[in-house]
Amino acid sequence: MHTPEQLLQLYDTTFSKNNFNTSPTNLYKPVEHIMSMKGKRLRPLLVMLSCEMFGGDVTKSLNAAFAMEVFHNFTLVHDDIMDKAETRRGMPTVHKVFGLNAAILAGDVMLAYAYKYLTASEPAKVPALMELFNTTAIQIFEGQQMDVDFEERDDVTEEEYLKMIEYKTSVLMACCTQTGAILAGADITAQKKIYDFGLYLGLSFQVRDDLLDAFGDGKKVGKKIGGDILLNKKTFLLLRTMRLCNDAQRAQLNELLREKDEHKKISGIQHLMQITGGYEQTKNEADRLFQQSISALESVGVPAASRSRLYDLACKINNRDY
Amino acid sequence: MHTPEQLLQLYDTTFSKNNFNTSPTNLYKPVEHIMSMKGKRLRPLLVMLSCEMFGGDVTKSLNAAFAMEVFHNFTLVHDDIMDKAETRRGMPTVHKVFGLNAAILAGDVMLAYAYKYLTASEPAKVPALMELFNTTAIQIFEGQQMDVDFEERDDVTEEEYLKMIEYKTSVLMACCTQTGAILAGADITAQKKIYDFGLYLGLSFQVRDDLLDAFGDGKKVGKKIGGDILLNKKTFLLLRTMRLCNDAQRAQLNELLREKDEHKKISGIQHLMQITGGYEQTKNEADRLFQQSISALESVGVPAASRSRLYDLACKINNRDY
Repeated sequence: MHTPEQLLQLYDTTFSKNNFNTSPTNLYKPVEHIMSMKGKRLRPLLVMLSCEMFGGDVTKSLNAAFAMEVFHNFTLVHDDIMDKAETRRGMPTVHKVFGLNAAILAGDVMLAYAYKYLTASEPAKVPALMELFNTTAIQIFEGQQMDVDFEERDDVTEEEYLKMIEYKTSVLMACCTQTGAILAGADITAQKKIYDFGLYLGLSFQVRDDLLDAFGDGKKVGKKIGGDILLNKKTFLLLRTMRLCNDAQRAQLNELLREKDEHKKISGIQHLMQITGGYEQTKNEADRLFQQSISALESVGVPAASRSRLYDLACKINNRDY
Repeated sequence: MHTPEQLLQLYDTTFSKNNFNTSPTNLYKPVEHIMSMKGKRLRPLLVMLSCEMFGGDVTKSLNAAFAMEVFHNFTLVHDDIMDKAETRRGMPTVHKVFGLNAAILAGDVMLAYAYKYLTASEPAKVPALMELFNTTAIQIFEGQQMDVDFEERDDVTEEEYLKMIEYKTSVLMACCTQTGAILAGADITAQKKIYDFGLYLGLSFQVRDDLLDAFGDGKKVGKKIGGDILLNKKTFLLLRTMRLCNDAQRAQLNELLREKDEHKKISGIQHLMQITGGYEQTKNEADRLFQQSISALESVGVPAASRSRLYDLACKINNRDY
């Protein structure tokens, strides 16, 4: 069993160079641009830790781990186009630097490379890996579309919001942990449980993210507080607050949603989120989802000592220390 | 052995409905839009005919056949964005009807569906199918990038042009014929030969397409003659003509490339293409590529009678009767 640091070092060494073709350069420079903004490599880590937890040989999970990271980065490239985002991880986005067409095509080729690396895994495991990954990829595109659709709608429910974040972000984390389990030869029951671990971890992460966007420490969160509020983003936090409002509070909230003064809008809505109990209940929901994640992990049927690395990582993610 | 008409009927019946999820509708409507513009379904036909030629059960090739058509349509959606194309098969393009973001995302999900259908093939064949398809997809994106790059360059060589069309269009036809062979259990030597058949067929098709764009019967070709000439598109025909020009002709050609009068430009360049021998030599090159395709087909090691369906289709494609 390796520490997360050792695993990331192994991963970084393995993929330090020549992971893509180099020509035509106008196709592969944008790919290098996004891949060189090394993120936290959380998804590869989930693959590798899960594989080791089930007694698998981590070196056999490296290609799949890389595939998940390439896929994740591909979604960032195309999502940034759709969101008209100008920066990512403090750097200009791919379409800003290389233009729209290059960003579309670079994303496309990255998706093909994700499949290429995934299928470089042990051939006998490829059909199961592919089935999981195909389903996941399709859900992620559906989740992205739901997110786009929700911007135009005023009647989004909490259930719909949770389904959207499940598809848009959580299923990939779940896919990563199950991929590690498949590679280690875990049985289907254990695979499903470790999938749920990743899924609920992703859900709790996102619900907590919404809380931090509204109430976090700006410096620690790394972005301006109240961004979602200004965009009238229908997060779980806002939806629950709306549900808890009495008539007077609801009238006030609807007014604040149209308020132009940024400071007034943010502080007014923050206040309502607190006095209605929306903040408190959202926090409880995030805790509940995190507990579901941990329960799933504890039920996978491996000794507690083997689970400790994934458990520690989940706690770090939950506490924003990762 | 079935006729092409029977195969297409089987294919159409199999995929007459419910091939994609339906929700979110904003994601799947654009997919339906492009898929409903039923093209010639040439790529599925190549998969199915190749599978039958090698004695395979055609019903086992249907998912892969559909995968190739979905992939092909995905490339059209993204290429149309990049080319700012307004119509396709006489209908408005996806991004024209549904907007840029929907077109990007619809393309992405189609790529995932192509993989999904391909991997619904016989599990033991999936690793080989995937390896071929991944390589092909990557080449196609590289070919599209080369095509974009060539617009900005004045020093494209014939070799580079042939490599570009090989990647951009021919490798998918080759992938289709080899996919049929893999599914039928053909040996690797036969697979390579039937791959070459598809590859050279695609190349000869494209070189002939360039000839028709400059000299075809507008009504039969279905587009305005001289389109490539007006765009200064560096086709094999233009590149060969440039190479054959004497100094006076080259000066004349360079002048015509900057000519604003459309009629003068088209007729002037057509004239040079003929008197230099550029037209004749390009025609010979297309014939030579077609012959290479047929030679590859004849060497696959199946009885001539089994080859006749693919042979007939190749001839039809070559004569623009398909």
